[in-house]
Amino acid sequence: MTLDKRVFKFKVEVVLKNGVLDPQGEAIKQSINFNNLGNVLEVKQGKLFELTVSSKDIKHAFQEVNEICSDLLANSVIEDFKYYEVSE
Amino acid sequence: MTLDKRVFKFKVEVVLKNGVLDPQGEAIKQSINFNNLGNVLEVKQGKLFELTVSSKDIKHAFQEVNEICSDLLANSVIEDFKYYEVSE
Repeated sequence: MTLDKRVFKFKVEVVLKNGVLDPQGEAIKQSINFNNLGNVLEVKQGKLFELTVSSKDIKHAFQEVNEICSDLLANSVIEDFKYYEVSE
Repeated sequence: MTLDKRVFKFKVEVVLKNGVLDPQGEAIKQSINFNNLGNVLEVKQGKLFELTVSSKDIKHAFQEVNEICSDLLANSVIEDFKYYEVSE
């Protein structure tokens, strides 16, 4: 057994696909304009995840994160996801 | 009246401050490990917003987005936010 696992940190962004109704974003937009906080044309709300993954190398870490996104974090029917490594 | 308003696009990330309990992130972590999707040490869930702002210049757009974040999108007691311009 080897103990040479390394720790990687990823950010995952999950957003609704174009054309999918986003009532929450629409409500936020109306609220911004109603409160005169600015002239906002569009608001889209999505989800953000910060994952700290322990894996043997960066390639395997990316594979794991991709699987986590497609199987658990995003609903592929209505949502797109993207992920990237962050330092910190 | 001038019509020289320009359109800017921003991404806003709202995350819980360090030390604030994140039961949703904890549940996702357990679900990932339970389903053998990877060896994940920590999950933090946050919110993501894409704002399309119409403003006279980038400086005013940044001011507006800052105000929107602190007044509406983030709860400053438990959440931190950051924002940046995106192209697209």
